[in-house]
Amino acid sequence: MPSEKIRLHIENARRKAGIFHITPERWAAASARHPALAGRLDVTLGWDADILEGALETAQIMIGVPSHREHLQRRAPHLRWLHATSAGVDGFFPLDWLPRGIVFTNNHGAHGVKAEQYMRMALTMLHTRMPRIIANQRERRWQQVFTPSIAGKTALIVGLGDLGEGAARAARQLNMKVLGVRRRAKKSRHADAVYPYTELDALLPLADCVVLAVPLTPETHHLLDRRRLDLLKPDAGVINIARAPVADYAALCEKLRRGELAGAILDVADPEPLPADSPLWDTPNLIITPHISCDDGEQYIDISLDLWFGNLARFLAHKPLKHRVGRKLGY
Amino acid sequence: MPSEKIRLHIENARRKAGIFHITPERWAAASARHPALAGRLDVTLGWDADILEGALETAQIMIGVPSHREHLQRRAPHLRWLHATSAGVDGFFPLDWLPRGIVFTNNHGAHGVKAEQYMRMALTMLHTRMPRIIANQRERRWQQVFTPSIAGKTALIVGLGDLGEGAARAARQLNMKVLGVRRRAKKSRHADAVYPYTELDALLPLADCVVLAVPLTPETHHLLDRRRLDLLKPDAGVINIARAPVADYAALCEKLRRGELAGAILDVADPEPLPADSPLWDTPNLIITPHISCDDGEQYIDISLDLWFGNLARFLAHKPLKHRVGRKLGY
Repeated sequence: MPSEKIRLHIENARRKAGIFHITPERWAAASARHPALAGRLDVTLGWDADILEGALETAQIMIGVPSHREHLQRRAPHLRWLHATSAGVDGFFPLDWLPRGIVFTNNHGAHGVKAEQYMRMALTMLHTRMPRIIANQRERRWQQVFTPSIAGKTALIVGLGDLGEGAARAARQLNMKVLGVRRRAKKSRHADAVYPYTELDALLPLADCVVLAVPLTPETHHLLDRRRLDLLKPDAGVINIARAPVADYAALCEKLRRGELAGAILDVADPEPLPADSPLWDTPNLIITPHISCDDGEQYIDISLDLWFGNLARFLAHKPLKHRVGRKLGY
Repeated sequence: MPSEKIRLHIENARRKAGIFHITPERWAAASARHPALAGRLDVTLGWDADILEGALETAQIMIGVPSHREHLQRRAPHLRWLHATSAGVDGFFPLDWLPRGIVFTNNHGAHGVKAEQYMRMALTMLHTRMPRIIANQRERRWQQVFTPSIAGKTALIVGLGDLGEGAARAARQLNMKVLGVRRRAKKSRHADAVYPYTELDALLPLADCVVLAVPLTPETHHLLDRRRLDLLKPDAGVINIARAPVADYAALCEKLRRGELAGAILDVADPEPLPADSPLWDTPNLIITPHISCDDGEQYIDISLDLWFGNLARFLAHKPLKHRVGRKLGY
């Protein structure tokens, strides 16, 4: 009976920032943009598990990964599709809690526009030596630091997913040379060349700026470690919009303190919020932004739900869903 | 006798930063790029007036405005063309020292590429609320400040010369709405609309960011004064890449201290270097860059000399020179 309604439960967490809440108003607005698809749904919307257990008994689809995921098979016997409203799903691994019959998708595609805008800014800030200029301001020191054009400088983008492609578009717009590294070395429209990870050590000495945009998995943990940081040029910059453990921050800070890098801009920390006593805060030539690089402050949920509705159309048509999280891949 | 050599004197000032020095090496490189034109010249090159008086006796063209400009007619009886290696010539006004028969040109065109790059950064920094994020880092405070896409926000560019057009290109690339203000309200390729100065008061309330890119003249002194600052939206930003006196910095700082603007980025101060006791240094949500927005740190002289050789071809062909400084206009 194709006209039978599909049970969807939407689960919100109040601890998340407001821009990530699927409020009744935002859901209604998204439904109005996709009326035919929305009409197929029977929806419940909960906060901090207030109605979660009852909703799970009938839910076939769920948006928002619950905090307590034990015994999901028994608690949600009809669940076939679980969708995370984040792109990074490293916090949900290992997926031993995920029953085999449930497809798990992430929010791929919701972050590229803001990532591109942030990266245009961050690449130019490092090239312009803004970390040093900002430190000089703090010390009331007028010291001219002239820099050449950024055109022709080399950006090395590690990971070419939604964020990495945004970074590549940004670098390309700045007329930088764009080198990409990804697991499968297929071409990218925005990179001059794309390499597999086995080439990373050979590429690092060429970079004027390294951009970390990979998912955090056991393979990418401390990908930019002390040894690889030492392969960078002394006037290179580092930008991390991925996850903090992708780089060895202790080694990075040591190099910055010794003046062995031009600067770094880190949008991610571990843990977040970064504690007040972290040595990161006052590391020289380091700028910390509070995990704001890639999330649209007004339309994050609008963008996310539009992408989700695109996947719902595939679900209803029994097509394979897009942006499935790979159990082995880790993202 | 068209084959007779033209006497050119190049005058350097050591007090200027090295990127602005026309060294013998840079002159030789530029001559090699323009061999036919360079072959017409008989060149002397001096530093801090070491050979100035002797050179002036025969010079027909001079690059670099001398510090002491009295009695130029008598000291340089053959001088027909004087070229400033800066774009802003407000420091040389009034032109009462300039004999009528000498054409005075400025370095228009040498700053647009860097201006565009700086403006992409500065517009995005203000939109992303980087002044607040940087202040938070100083206080070791992780506080997420989310912002929407910059696309569709309005940049109001005051002055559409070399710098202003660079700013307009930057804003257009960010998919901002670009409004321009210029003396003669002719169209600009990079602005959605261009208005005369009489419309400025009506435009200020529409701006998400105001960019000052006008020459400093008696007409533009304190153009952005207290009254006009009060016409801005409380979440607007201000960027100055022109000259400090174009804005009333005291009024601007008061507004920033009261939280009546989102932020400001000032690349110019008065005086420069900005003294350590200036209240600007620690005004909240204000970022100061040390007059580095528009000067290429490697190729400034290469770019400048290539433009100058273009004008030399016009000089030799008895065509009117480009980028003549207007006595009444003030730039």
